[in-house]
Amino acid sequence: MASVIIPEVVPPPEHDSETLKKAFQGWGTDEKAVIRVLGRRDASQRKKITQAYQQLYNESLFDSLRSELSGDFLNAVLLWTYDPPERDARLINEALNSKRKGVKYLQVIVEVACATSPHHLMAVRQAYCSLYECSIEEDIVSNVQFPLKKLLVGLVSSYRYDKDLVDMSVAKLEAGHLHEAIQKKELDHDYVVWILGTRNFFQLRATFACYKQDYSSTIDQDVLKCGIDDDLQALLRIVILCIECPEKHFAEVLHSSTETLIRTSILGLGTDEDSLTRAIVTRAELDMLKIKEEHAKLYKESVEDAVIGDTSGDYKNFLLTLLGKEI
Amino acid sequence: MASVIIPEVVPPPEHDSETLKKAFQGWGTDEKAVIRVLGRRDASQRKKITQAYQQLYNESLFDSLRSELSGDFLNAVLLWTYDPPERDARLINEALNSKRKGVKYLQVIVEVACATSPHHLMAVRQAYCSLYECSIEEDIVSNVQFPLKKLLVGLVSSYRYDKDLVDMSVAKLEAGHLHEAIQKKELDHDYVVWILGTRNFFQLRATFACYKQDYSSTIDQDVLKCGIDDDLQALLRIVILCIECPEKHFAEVLHSSTETLIRTSILGLGTDEDSLTRAIVTRAELDMLKIKEEHAKLYKESVEDAVIGDTSGDYKNFLLTLLGKEI
Repeated sequence: MASVIIPEVVPPPEHDSETLKKAFQGWGTDEKAVIRVLGRRDASQRKKITQAYQQLYNESLFDSLRSELSGDFLNAVLLWTYDPPERDARLINEALNSKRKGVKYLQVIVEVACATSPHHLMAVRQAYCSLYECSIEEDIVSNVQFPLKKLLVGLVSSYRYDKDLVDMSVAKLEAGHLHEAIQKKELDHDYVVWILGTRNFFQLRATFACYKQDYSSTIDQDVLKCGIDDDLQALLRIVILCIECPEKHFAEVLHSSTETLIRTSILGLGTDEDSLTRAIVTRAELDMLKIKEEHAKLYKESVEDAVIGDTSGDYKNFLLTLLGKEI
Repeated sequence: MASVIIPEVVPPPEHDSETLKKAFQGWGTDEKAVIRVLGRRDASQRKKITQAYQQLYNESLFDSLRSELSGDFLNAVLLWTYDPPERDARLINEALNSKRKGVKYLQVIVEVACATSPHHLMAVRQAYCSLYECSIEEDIVSNVQFPLKKLLVGLVSSYRYDKDLVDMSVAKLEAGHLHEAIQKKELDHDYVVWILGTRNFFQLRATFACYKQDYSSTIDQDVLKCGIDDDLQALLRIVILCIECPEKHFAEVLHSSTETLIRTSILGLGTDEDSLTRAIVTRAELDMLKIKEEHAKLYKESVEDAVIGDTSGDYKNFLLTLLGKEI
């Protein structure tokens, strides 16, 4: 389900490091070479390249990238080159320390907690502690307002069972708990946080299915209808979507970030390359093929065409490479 | 700080496995040999022995132990032989599924969450999922009453920063939050759970010190004085003690379990070997020397004398071996 294309024969990491070093040398940078090497390696191969580069040249590959590339292209290449747990820890830290608060920035926390594996989330928490000398939970409690922080702390602290094991009686019971909380407009009720933050993803999908069966509308529709138009409602809807159908969530992120690009380039208000980069970089090795399908179905446009229409230069070429397009 | 004594020259695991196999053969079991081998190896050595035993005899060492030993001795040897994360996962599961509810049984969860390393807690959560096909948090939510479960879910979900980094302004601020919650008798307030469940242990000790400085009594005294004589109060006091001074908590556990042995043997109401075993097995490789010092200071009796006075046979000899006594 990954979109990124790895060549059948991959050069040894020392060879890739040499290619990168050569791309950085002389006047200007050979960005195409950077894209060709890093954009076509999987996470473990990229990790070996960064280690080989450090050993061969006694220099951090990240520092070299920072001095040679710039802007959105640099940002995307750096994020792609970090070890995935470190990358996600950095994205979360940036969101928590962003001056621009709100669900749009906090949703990356939900994505990591609800749309990656429990094992990956644990690795992200470890990376976060190593990088920032505190836990993610501490930073959420310090930087996010109540009641958003209550839900987010519950979600990032989870270590869910990771196999397909469903108890239908629990699904029915907990669909009832969720329904009652939503009816009472208590979207941050302890049971809401516990159910969404501790149950395995398969169990939760069964709970959502029970919900629809027993209450004639989806849990998402009921959260939307419950009349509280606030950040918690918006965040909860992202949680539900990330658990139920992550590819749909990311198709929406891609769509709204490219839509924003079009709209704001006219309005001159800045763009949303950060979301575009995040969605492509974090999912290219996971489920981008499914996201592309979902995007085409929902918006009658391929992700590639959206990217081509809204970005340019090396940044565009790098994103397209991660999407699996030959450039 | 470990009490268990490892010989200067440790035989290879295959040799230890042979010794164990011989101890099991023929009429009766050579319990002394079992104690001599397993009671004088560290966790990684014991793990290698179980692997070598399985390979050599195509049989699980645990099964052999179960068929050869019995009672409290068997229980103690099994717990000692499990990989520590698996051991703690089993102890927690037993507590959660015990028919005898209450703080006395649930305190093992606090011990694992607040008196071991964050890394160990994470390994315990992984082991729990592998063994029981659900997360610890799920089982707490299902099996424990509110508000105990709120505190326990917060504690087991933590992944604290594990180094000595203290922010005194945070300590002062959060001592204030804790004081306010205790004054209002809201011992399960979100902030109480967040502070105790997310901050690193060094920070929390500083917070407790600030508390004493600013409010003229210790946080433990205030929790005790707050007038709610219930399970949450009792559990919270164990949390505070496990964070502040784990050796004191375990000295108390040892004392009350041996005291119970004396008292209940007179009353004929059963004994508390489970707590005695748990305290010695889980701490013999961590901080038992400090626990022994604390026990001697508090109760004017050595842990060894308490064990000798209250247990007998192979069980006694095994516990004494873990305590570092030559037998």
